[in-house]
Amino acid sequence: MDANRKVELFLERPMRRGRASATHKGALIIIGGHEDRTGERRVLGAVAERLGDDGKIVVCTVASAEPDSLWEEYESAFRALGVPHVYRLDVESREDAATPRAMRILEGATGVFFTGGDQLKITSQIGDTPLYSRVQEIFEAGGVIAGTSAGASAMSETMLVANDGEASYRIKSALLMAPGLGLAQDMLIDQHFSERGRMARLIGAISQNPHVLGVGIDEDTALILEHARHFRVLGRGGVYVVDASRTTHSNVGEAKETLSRFGIAVHMLSQGDRFDLSTRTPSSHSAESMERVEAKLKREATGD
Amino acid sequence: MDANRKVELFLERPMRRGRASATHKGALIIIGGHEDRTGERRVLGAVAERLGDDGKIVVCTVASAEPDSLWEEYESAFRALGVPHVYRLDVESREDAATPRAMRILEGATGVFFTGGDQLKITSQIGDTPLYSRVQEIFEAGGVIAGTSAGASAMSETMLVANDGEASYRIKSALLMAPGLGLAQDMLIDQHFSERGRMARLIGAISQNPHVLGVGIDEDTALILEHARHFRVLGRGGVYVVDASRTTHSNVGEAKETLSRFGIAVHMLSQGDRFDLSTRTPSSHSAESMERVEAKLKREATGD
Repeated sequence: MDANRKVELFLERPMRRGRASATHKGALIIIGGHEDRTGERRVLGAVAERLGDDGKIVVCTVASAEPDSLWEEYESAFRALGVPHVYRLDVESREDAATPRAMRILEGATGVFFTGGDQLKITSQIGDTPLYSRVQEIFEAGGVIAGTSAGASAMSETMLVANDGEASYRIKSALLMAPGLGLAQDMLIDQHFSERGRMARLIGAISQNPHVLGVGIDEDTALILEHARHFRVLGRGGVYVVDASRTTHSNVGEAKETLSRFGIAVHMLSQGDRFDLSTRTPSSHSAESMERVEAKLKREATGD
Repeated sequence: MDANRKVELFLERPMRRGRASATHKGALIIIGGHEDRTGERRVLGAVAERLGDDGKIVVCTVASAEPDSLWEEYESAFRALGVPHVYRLDVESREDAATPRAMRILEGATGVFFTGGDQLKITSQIGDTPLYSRVQEIFEAGGVIAGTSAGASAMSETMLVANDGEASYRIKSALLMAPGLGLAQDMLIDQHFSERGRMARLIGAISQNPHVLGVGIDEDTALILEHARHFRVLGRGGVYVVDASRTTHSNVGEAKETLSRFGIAVHMLSQGDRFDLSTRTPSSHSAESMERVEAKLKREATGD
């Protein structure tokens, strides 16, 4: 389809998430930041392996204040991983996200990668634009949508916005949240998790609505979500799942100055472990099982 | 008893914890650091109120690298709180902890307060000395033993030693622990908890032995443990209890590079809330209930 027509179509009928999207085949790869870009590249490798035979990835640097150097790093990394087509999409305004140029860059893409930076730049500049519709379309067609750091947070339906300086266990200290891209349904994702000691703020955030599952991802670590039903863990660190659905007491809304909540379940997952999102149960698998899965995908991707 | 004789007696027969100590009447006040020393002094007030009619507190600055200024702050605070007798005990060597002078300073004390600094200085210099025997004796006679920051960590049986820089969720990164004073039985205490983002390291530590309950205390917040059976929370922040006793999977000891553990129970307690140590269950109480308890103690202490 012509790129101009595509923009018009998406402006008329934006792709918004519906119930059908719960069953599509796309993969989400959500990364806790600081993934290895020059060495083993275990996490970026998982993105590359899922792009298909004649894969095309578009690196979207919209979140970053230093998009040029970041683009160079990712271009080198994905080329070194053997991705045939590596493109850049920078967005400096909502107008940029509604151009035929953006549609042309995303034409034929089998993956989109959102870099780190400021998650609010991602959502404010691409939310409900033709660019976002196109990302959603790629995802629902079975493509890979990946994000790291701010790009990870933005995957949430409701996302955390940086305020580490505040004592988020205090009821009165507003936890800064904003509507995210919503690709990761019913999850609230936090990144640089152990490294920046963010458990208290994640618990504070999900206490406001235990329907949402809290997911904290360590650096150089990813969760790979396929078929929207379960995810697996890949990388050097851990993934923390915080489930407040069975908590027995909450004083959110009461006069107390600090939060009480009893019976939060915390699961620490490491490479290979799986988490079923519908039953909210983890299961244990060896780190090697994940390496075998990845190696198989790599053989398929390279045709060996 | 003569101070010289007391030293000899404790050298011959050190007070070490026995089963009997589980039923004594002493109070432990364990503080997460940075407690208010000049304003409302809610946490230090709880120490003062429990010292009795003709209370005598001994501030032990052994942990600190700047004991003089710290002593001045605590002396002012406890005097402002109306404590009749405020003494200082500095210890620069194990020999200092075995002197008649130390016994004389602790003569008639109804409370001992351990300041912040380095918890290893506390345990290495007073562990199993006559000074420690005397602290244990005061505790078992119904006195108050309080500690803040390093002084809080040292209350544990096995204590964490500062290594925030390390990624403690990594199995291979040794979590630094050392034997503590052991006044808080079956607990592993961490302080400056939310402020320094220490949940991952506490989970890492208790994963090595879920028999121990992990307890993280925020700044300007205390747990007050009475009769060794339950504790209550006082102060501006929260107390996090981490209970790994019902976890279903652990890969500690396996080849994985990162920790997996499923089903950790986390309870966030705030002022007024209680925690039963024998059943490991929290219960909810209003913040005001704690203020009423403290106000009653204060009236009794001042004879109003």
